[in-house]
Amino acid sequence: MTADTQPGWINDVAFNEEGLVPAIAQDSASGDVLMMAWMNAKALEKTAETGEAVYYSRSRERLWHKGESSGHVQKVHEMRLDCDADVILLRVEQIGGIACHTGRRHCFYRRLENGAWQESETVLMDPKAIYGAEPS
Amino acid sequence: MTADTQPGWINDVAFNEEGLVPAIAQDSASGDVLMMAWMNAKALEKTAETGEAVYYSRSRERLWHKGESSGHVQKVHEMRLDCDADVILLRVEQIGGIACHTGRRHCFYRRLENGAWQESETVLMDPKAIYGAEPS
Repeated sequence: MTADTQPGWINDVAFNEEGLVPAIAQDSASGDVLMMAWMNAKALEKTAETGEAVYYSRSRERLWHKGESSGHVQKVHEMRLDCDADVILLRVEQIGGIACHTGRRHCFYRRLENGAWQESETVLMDPKAIYGAEPS
Repeated sequence: MTADTQPGWINDVAFNEEGLVPAIAQDSASGDVLMMAWMNAKALEKTAETGEAVYYSRSRERLWHKGESSGHVQKVHEMRLDCDADVILLRVEQIGGIACHTGRRHCFYRRLENGAWQESETVLMDPKAIYGAEPS
């Protein structure tokens, strides 16, 4: 799919030189910031089409349907774009209540205290119990 | 300041190849995601030292003390780091209630609706009234 045929709203997004845009996922009920990942044009399109968050995995170099192996998909309630058109905000319902591959509710579980990052969130599920194969 | 002399908690951060890390600012009272910008090691250090958000402006290629010209500084209540150590989350008090250089409460004022980005937040103050010189 080229810039000519993809939805117009995707053309409005200012992707970086790698064709990616940061996407922040926020829990629409609690307001918690769950994670930040990256999207390319196809990931944005799939997210809008399916109503579930699809990111682009830079390490695996492929589309990553969040929850594809864990079942912890993110139902997208709202997609937003910032003033510079270079950051996406998703307001989501996090199925399973676990967004982080470490088994925590969200990825921002380290807090700066007294000059060190202190872990502050409970591991709700052992990652080994979440994943059959690779984290998602 | 080198990696040898900077605070140890900064060495734990996985900066990108440009020496930057994305930083999300969230309103600590409302939970609203206000903006995303970038930090280098010095910006992180200054933020922790001063208790006010200091970013790195990629366009101006210098440290950017948010609110330096508008007065709309961000008082940092909490700094968090994600599981991959490559995203920062700040929980802040947004002085003046305006985080966006467009005069809106936050930067994510465009919402995808019916295949187009629709503006959904009121301009609280004319940017011309906010800034003497350049946006901040």
